Amino acid sequence: MSRILVTAIPQLTEAHRGRIRAAAERQGLEALFFERDGDALPALAGAEILFAQSADLAAAAPALRWQCTPSAGVDHFSPETFAASGAVLTNSSGAYGVTIAEHVILVILQLLRRQPEYADIIARRQWRRDLAIRSIHGSRALLLGTGDIGRETARRLRGFAPASVTGMNRSGRNPENLFDRIIPEGELDAALPEADLVILSLPGTAETVHVLDRRRLSRLPDGALLVNVGRGAAVDQAALEAELRAGRLYAALDVFEREPIPADASLWQCPNLLITPHAAGNMTLPYTLDRIVELFLQDLENYGAGRPLERRVDLRRGY
Amino acid sequence: MSRILVTAIPQLTEAHRGRIRAAAERQGLEALFFERDGDALPALAGAEILFAQSADLAAAAPALRWQCTPSAGVDHFSPETFAASGAVLTNSSGAYGVTIAEHVILVILQLLRRQPEYADIIARRQWRRDLAIRSIHGSRALLLGTGDIGRETARRLRGFAPASVTGMNRSGRNPENLFDRIIPEGELDAALPEADLVILSLPGTAETVHVLDRRRLSRLPDGALLVNVGRGAAVDQAALEAELRAGRLYAALDVFEREPIPADASLWQCPNLLITPHAAGNMTLPYTLDRIVELFLQDLENYGAGRPLERRVDLRRGY
Repeated sequence: MSRILVTAIPQLTEAHRGRIRAAAERQGLEALFFERDGDALPALAGAEILFAQSADLAAAAPALRWQCTPSAGVDHFSPETFAASGAVLTNSSGAYGVTIAEHVILVILQLLRRQPEYADIIARRQWRRDLAIRSIHGSRALLLGTGDIGRETARRLRGFAPASVTGMNRSGRNPENLFDRIIPEGELDAALPEADLVILSLPGTAETVHVLDRRRLSRLPDGALLVNVGRGAAVDQAALEAELRAGRLYAALDVFEREPIPADASLWQCPNLLITPHAAGNMTLPYTLDRIVELFLQDLENYGAGRPLERRVDLRRGY
Repeated sequence: MSRILVTAIPQLTEAHRGRIRAAAERQGLEALFFERDGDALPALAGAEILFAQSADLAAAAPALRWQCTPSAGVDHFSPETFAASGAVLTNSSGAYGVTIAEHVILVILQLLRRQPEYADIIARRQWRRDLAIRSIHGSRALLLGTGDIGRETARRLRGFAPASVTGMNRSGRNPENLFDRIIPEGELDAALPEADLVILSLPGTAETVHVLDRRRLSRLPDGALLVNVGRGAAVDQAALEAELRAGRLYAALDVFEREPIPADASLWQCPNLLITPHAAGNMTLPYTLDRIVELFLQDLENYGAGRPLERRVDLRRGY
C-alpha cells in the first residue's frame, strides 16, 4: 500500500499541484488532490500527511503523522486531536506578511488622508480639496506582535519616515533591527499614550484576549489610529466602538469578535471606522499562495530527511 | 521708508508668521501678512519680496526683487512679468514630496487591492472576501519625473520589494541611488511594455504635454496602473479613458486636462478609475506648510547674504 499525502486546498493552481506531486514522489508518497474537504474523507484512512486548512480532517486520519495548514492562525485546531494521535501540526506563518503589511499601510493612509470622505465628495461630483489630513511621516507607530506581519509592516513603515517604530513581543528579540525598540507587555501601559498608530497582529490565544481593553484604549492619545489584522478578540470591541463614536480614536478593523459581523450590529454604521471583511490576509494574492506552497515544500523536505519541521505549532501555546 | 516683505498665504499659522517676522527683521525687512490677495494690493507698491501663490501680484509690485510661491508648479506664472521687472521667482519644490508620495502609495494599493469594491461590499453589509488582488511586491515601477515627488515615492516603494524601480528624467542623475536605472525620454517607448505601475510627477511644460499619448498608452501591458500627480496635460485623457473603459488599464488621477472636471464629463463615471480632486499635494498636511516656510526662510537667508536663491525657477524651462 502506498503512502499518501492528501491535499485539500481548492485555490492551488496546476503548477502548484505539479510541484507538490513531484516532491511527494521523490519521497515515495502519492499526492492526492481534493477541492472540497468532504471529498477528501475517503482518502484519509491511509493519509500520512495532510495539507489542508480544515481542523476536522485530522481526527478522521488514523495514520496521520503531519498536518500542514495553509493558514497562519491555528486557533481553530484542537490540541486534543493532535495530542491523541501524536501527529505534528505546522502552519503557514511567513506566507501572509507581504499581503497583510500592504493592507495595513493602505488602511492607515486611507484614514489619515480621509479617503472615504474624498470618495464621497467625488461621488457627488464636487471639487472640495481642503480636508485637513495627517501623515505616517513623523508619526509614532506601535506594533503589537513582531512576527512575519509585524516585521513586513515595520519594513514598509520605515520608508515613510515615521518618528518611531516600537514593537511589543514576548521574546524581546528585535528582528532585523526593524524596530527602534522592543518592549514586553509589562511596558504597554506606558507606551500607549505615546502611540499615534497601533497595529495588532497577535495570534488568537488566551493571553491576547482583550489585550487592548477599555482601560488601555483610554490611554491612547486623542486621534490615535488602531489597525487590527490579527484576531478580533484582542480588542474590547464595545469599548473601541464607544471611542470611535466619541470621535476620539480611529480604527481599521479586518477582524472582529464575531465574523461575519452580525447583520444588526451597530458597528456597521460606526463613524471613524474602516471595515474590511477579514480580507487582509487570505489567499487572494497569488504571491501568498506561492509562499504557502514553498513553505510546505521546505518542510516536506525536512520531513523526508527526518529533520524537525520548521513551522511546527505548539498548540498549547497557540502559535 | 522701510523695506517690505508681503506675505499672502492664508494657511500660515501664528507660529509661521512669528518665524517669518523675526527672520525678516534680522534683515531690516518689515513683514506684512494678508489673508487675501486683494487685501495685499495696497502694500505691493513698496514690496521688495513677495511670498504668495498668486501670479497676479508681481505685476502690481514695481519694486519687487523676489517672489516665492508656496506651490511647486509654476505654470500659472508668466515669464514676461518676471523678464520685464528682473525679479526672481522661486518655488516650494521640496515641500510636497512627502504628502504626494503618501498619496501615490495609497491610490496604488487602493486599486491593486480593489478597495473601492470592498467598500461597496461593506456598505451593503455583505461578507464577500474572495476578490483577486495584486501587490506592489514584485511589480515593475516606472516613474516619469525623479524630482522631490519621484524620489520620495521611490523611497517608499522600495520598502514594498517591487521587482524594479525605473526613473525617467532629463539629467540622467540617479538621486540617492533610489532607482535601479534612469532612462531618458528616448527610451520610454521601450520601457512602457515592461511597466506595471507608471507614476507621473512631471511639471507642466510644453515638452510634457501628452508625454503619454494614445500610442504610448497602448504600449503598456494589460492591467498596468497609471498614477498622475503632476499635470493633467501630460496624459491624453480621452485615450486613457478609452483604455480604462476597455478594462485594459487602471488609473488614479489627481490632475486633469480641465480642473475641476466639468460636471457633464463622462470621466466621472469611468470604470477602473480613482479620481481625487487635485488633493494629493495641497497644503492640508501641516508638515507641508512647515516645509514651505522652512524652505522660504532658507532662501530668505540666502537673499540677505547676497547668495543665489536655491529654489530659483527658470520660467522658460518651466521648473
